[in-house]
Amino acid sequence: MPRPVLIDTDPGVDDVLAIAMLLASPEVEVIGLTTVHGNMSVDVCTRNALYFLEVASRTDIPVARGAGDPIAMPFRGGAAFVHGPDGLGDRMVDGVSTTPVGEDAADFIIRSVRARPGEVVLAPIGPLTNLAVALERDPGIAELTAEVVVMGGNAYCDGNASPAAEANILNDPEAAEIVFGADWPVVMLGLDVTDEVSLTGAHLDRIAAGTTPMHALLREASAFYQRFHEEAIPGYDGLCPHDATALAWLIDPSLFEVIERPIRVGMEGLGRGKTWPAEPYRMPEYEPWRGRPEVTIATQVDASAMADLITTRLVAFGS
Amino acid sequence: MPRPVLIDTDPGVDDVLAIAMLLASPEVEVIGLTTVHGNMSVDVCTRNALYFLEVASRTDIPVARGAGDPIAMPFRGGAAFVHGPDGLGDRMVDGVSTTPVGEDAADFIIRSVRARPGEVVLAPIGPLTNLAVALERDPGIAELTAEVVVMGGNAYCDGNASPAAEANILNDPEAAEIVFGADWPVVMLGLDVTDEVSLTGAHLDRIAAGTTPMHALLREASAFYQRFHEEAIPGYDGLCPHDATALAWLIDPSLFEVIERPIRVGMEGLGRGKTWPAEPYRMPEYEPWRGRPEVTIATQVDASAMADLITTRLVAFGS
Repeated sequence: MPRPVLIDTDPGVDDVLAIAMLLASPEVEVIGLTTVHGNMSVDVCTRNALYFLEVASRTDIPVARGAGDPIAMPFRGGAAFVHGPDGLGDRMVDGVSTTPVGEDAADFIIRSVRARPGEVVLAPIGPLTNLAVALERDPGIAELTAEVVVMGGNAYCDGNASPAAEANILNDPEAAEIVFGADWPVVMLGLDVTDEVSLTGAHLDRIAAGTTPMHALLREASAFYQRFHEEAIPGYDGLCPHDATALAWLIDPSLFEVIERPIRVGMEGLGRGKTWPAEPYRMPEYEPWRGRPEVTIATQVDASAMADLITTRLVAFGS
Repeated sequence: MPRPVLIDTDPGVDDVLAIAMLLASPEVEVIGLTTVHGNMSVDVCTRNALYFLEVASRTDIPVARGAGDPIAMPFRGGAAFVHGPDGLGDRMVDGVSTTPVGEDAADFIIRSVRARPGEVVLAPIGPLTNLAVALERDPGIAELTAEVVVMGGNAYCDGNASPAAEANILNDPEAAEIVFGADWPVVMLGLDVTDEVSLTGAHLDRIAAGTTPMHALLREASAFYQRFHEEAIPGYDGLCPHDATALAWLIDPSLFEVIERPIRVGMEGLGRGKTWPAEPYRMPEYEPWRGRPEVTIATQVDASAMADLITTRLVAFGS
């Protein structure tokens, strides 16, 4: 039986790579997309989610629009310099013919989890605002959720949105603090692993050879994001599929090495948005972590096998 | 010609291992010890420095007493649970017959650097208070100092005094911010490398077989520190020679891999005392690092060769 997965997303080029990968994966059933501010405004991200599902011929999947702002601050303006002026490169998406469902993302999450107790996987690949709002509205969902698979954070490496912090967490640290503190099974797949994986030009050529409209979308959307990587990082070949690497946890977790640690999220100063794991045995100043649940943190990835897995699934989409 | 080195220290068991190692190394000439609060109060650390030099028959080396408190807060109480009630285990040092020089550590540093322009290496293996005070009294010493070799910080790994921070930096973050921000060549050898090295029971047996009074001191002082490591960390064999690993930079820098990054020090919240490197090329929020000098950061060490080097030098002491 495929696992039911609800993807919380701010598309975003690597978001659509990740969603397309899961749509092509028999291990999971994508039961909905919830949208959130992040890479772009929630308006643009919602439109992009609807547009992607139209192109993918999967308008059977509901989309629920989520939070436009982080919990404790206004929306920071997104990352058009990474994902393009459209959030899916610079192809300039026109209007879409479908609309979101009537309830907001948090209510959609709550209803979905309660409809299938113990079964639903939440897969946030944007800021964690919607999950935090859902938890605050209905704390009971924590014990009914099968797993929370987070693309976000950095345990033992640099950040990418500040020297300290990864973008999804920095875009709503207060929400992340709530999500990592709730009593549900969380897997954090952050820059420690996602930064290690690249889809090279050769991988992208294989994907681009696909013949469905979705392949054309991925090809066009990826070009801007690829250019960002190759211009920002000397010698880089291709692009970094952060979200797809994280969600591949649902396909083949054996590609990762993990540790278990409680996590607190930095709030102040230079460290705002940093995900802090703690090793209890050596810590004289462990108090702030006491009582926090252990999070499964991915620390290593088989980068070559991961790039092959993502590519193979994307090539197979629609076949 | 051996390089003249001034060791700023808070002995501390691994401090005396490090000082003994340099005393046994022809590559350097230890021209003085300056003391600082840290592992113990500055009173105890100063007494321990004097005592160590007496035992090592090196009372020709001057000791200058330094700061008793960090720049911006009171002394935190030290780490007797790591280094023993005496700071050198639990052997309970009696009085010493020598005394510190008349000037304080910061003035001693300034005078030493100005006496040999461009030659003197400063080697702080405790909190960075004395160096910061010296810089504030005489900023001109920065360009006259050959190198600053810091045991402290953590770039891409957990802390040891908080989940975020290494003990020397957490014991005076404001001083560290000054030292890493000054325009002198700084090498940061922190937990990224020092935590990787252990002197195992077998190494310690080799050292303990030495026949000088200094070997007896190291044997007795190390026992408490070894017990701390073996009780705190399941399966640990021996002890971690943080300070000796860092100062081995002055003997064989080829044992390390390094990168160059500007560093800021966390001041607030969970991240207080964290040393933050920044990668300029990918940082939209790089502003707080702009204009900061690049620090040489050790990221990898040949741990086996390092343990052998430290052991070999300590065995050879006095011969």
